[in-house]
Amino acid sequence: MTGTPTSSSIADRLTGTREYILPTLRQAVDTLHPHLAHACGYHFGWWSSDGEPSAGAVPSKFLRATLVLLAAETVGGNPRAAVPGAVAVELLHNHSLLHDDVIDQDDERRGRRTVWSAYGTGTAVLAGDALAALAVSRLEQTQTAPARRALVMLTNAFQCICTGQAADLELERGGPASVENYLRMAADKTSALLACAAGVGAVLSGADEGTIGRLQASCTDLGLAWQAANDVEDIWGDPAVTGKPPLSDLRQGKMTLPVLAALASGSPAGNELAAHRGSAAGRRTEDLEHIADLIVQAGGRAVAERMARDRLASAESHLRELRVPDLHRDALTALFRFIVTRSA
Amino acid sequence: MTGTPTSSSIADRLTGTREYILPTLRQAVDTLHPHLAHACGYHFGWWSSDGEPSAGAVPSKFLRATLVLLAAETVGGNPRAAVPGAVAVELLHNHSLLHDDVIDQDDERRGRRTVWSAYGTGTAVLAGDALAALAVSRLEQTQTAPARRALVMLTNAFQCICTGQAADLELERGGPASVENYLRMAADKTSALLACAAGVGAVLSGADEGTIGRLQASCTDLGLAWQAANDVEDIWGDPAVTGKPPLSDLRQGKMTLPVLAALASGSPAGNELAAHRGSAAGRRTEDLEHIADLIVQAGGRAVAERMARDRLASAESHLRELRVPDLHRDALTALFRFIVTRSA
Repeated sequence: MTGTPTSSSIADRLTGTREYILPTLRQAVDTLHPHLAHACGYHFGWWSSDGEPSAGAVPSKFLRATLVLLAAETVGGNPRAAVPGAVAVELLHNHSLLHDDVIDQDDERRGRRTVWSAYGTGTAVLAGDALAALAVSRLEQTQTAPARRALVMLTNAFQCICTGQAADLELERGGPASVENYLRMAADKTSALLACAAGVGAVLSGADEGTIGRLQASCTDLGLAWQAANDVEDIWGDPAVTGKPPLSDLRQGKMTLPVLAALASGSPAGNELAAHRGSAAGRRTEDLEHIADLIVQAGGRAVAERMARDRLASAESHLRELRVPDLHRDALTALFRFIVTRSA
Repeated sequence: MTGTPTSSSIADRLTGTREYILPTLRQAVDTLHPHLAHACGYHFGWWSSDGEPSAGAVPSKFLRATLVLLAAETVGGNPRAAVPGAVAVELLHNHSLLHDDVIDQDDERRGRRTVWSAYGTGTAVLAGDALAALAVSRLEQTQTAPARRALVMLTNAFQCICTGQAADLELERGGPASVENYLRMAADKTSALLACAAGVGAVLSGADEGTIGRLQASCTDLGLAWQAANDVEDIWGDPAVTGKPPLSDLRQGKMTLPVLAALASGSPAGNELAAHRGSAAGRRTEDLEHIADLIVQAGGRAVAERMARDRLASAESHLRELRVPDLHRDALTALFRFIVTRSA
């Protein structure tokens, strides 16, 4: 679990995380009702929806678990002691993915059908619930003071994710749309679990308050950078990389950062874009491509790209203030850059 | 919160519970995103889906919260100290109601439209998630050893509910249907949270292990009795009492206890019933009434009614073995009877 900040060492580290957490994660999923364990294993890419060895599944990268383990290592802990935390964070994250797909009615994830689409809405709702319960129970089993604090962090993130998703839903349904609201939503929806991941790793390794706070602040910025980069990638990225159909946010009429920034620009392109709002259903691909062009012309893409850069820079400046070995700081910095620039 | 086991004193007790827990419950719901708080308040009957003062809403009875408070009182504790536990249990219960209605696609609950039907599936899924997160956070805020143990009980119940719901879903989709599987499902789906409620109340009041175990065993029986009584009520009860459309379990092709017992009877009526299985969709009311008659003829209704009686008797015999003042035992007994016989 050590390395220099090159992308090959990031790949090694992600592989390392997989090896660390997979046995514990599979053991946890195995405790579920067989029907839910099946759906969850499919979601994680362990088998097809028929239970056959999975062909063509894009495996989960376990970025959040990697953040837990790396934070533990950074503050001088043994990453093994942080494995329950890493598994809990991944379980909670995948709980939210299963439910997000139901809420957004997304058909595809990681290049395959989503759980609700393959197994039905009822199974997806229940499997998501079961993963949330499993996440909480992971940290509860260790009745130490650090594990209890980690559990408070996890529950707090659980609540933030719900708040962020609700704000997202409200935005989609025509609620007050502004860049400011969007950033609050992204902090809840994306940053909170990243800050929880780093916090859990640090707490389980006995870090001091200053270090925990700084790691969490860096992850709040990381989340905003990631969300902004994700929004850009969704519209202008390669579907083979995103694993989602092209222009899916626009197709669903989502008010993402590039859209909101374009609408707020007051430019002619922004005004033309505003006229399109609320009529996304059933749009043809060429209309969506025209909308994407309007967003570029109104400067919405540039705002989102700048936000991704600036917030990543801010996250890195928090890391520079940590009193930790350079080796670990560099590894965290490399992970942050990978998250924002390589894995939308 | 004291009284003799008459039904008027049960009504007083339920009113008492409402007064105890409502301020804390509303405060908890108020911390949610406004959109989710609105949907949850509608679900609890506090307002209409337009946010107007609620007319015609059947308020929640808070039976599980009453069980928490009564268990606390029974073991000599102050029910006030058990309020966080009572609120947590109700939050978890209502989490599962919101999601159950999505899973079962039920349109009506307590005489009004269900949350998914009034606010959309996305909101119902998120509101349910938010209530689960809130439930966990209620017990986490009190960092005492009893509260930690209560939290373990709550998380265990959360996991059991998911397992029970999954088993229920599997039954509906043609999975192995037997009375034995049904009882296991009911123990997870219904008994676990009742046992959790009594356990949480007792633990938060410092009860000894023997008392906790006996209270939980009585609630396991109570849950089975209730589930059996509920199944009978759903088919043969008064829709004005159940708050659901008539024959809704049969309409949905649910494999409830009377159906399973009838199928297992080997009688001509049971065999005729078996021929109907799997073709419930779009049935006319007179067909459903014929099916209900077949279940009676095959003895399915009698089996379920006997199960309700026998399990209630077993629950009461556990209560008789508790070393607690008769006043409290009698109050618990009265609550158990009310749950099974009056409130399907």
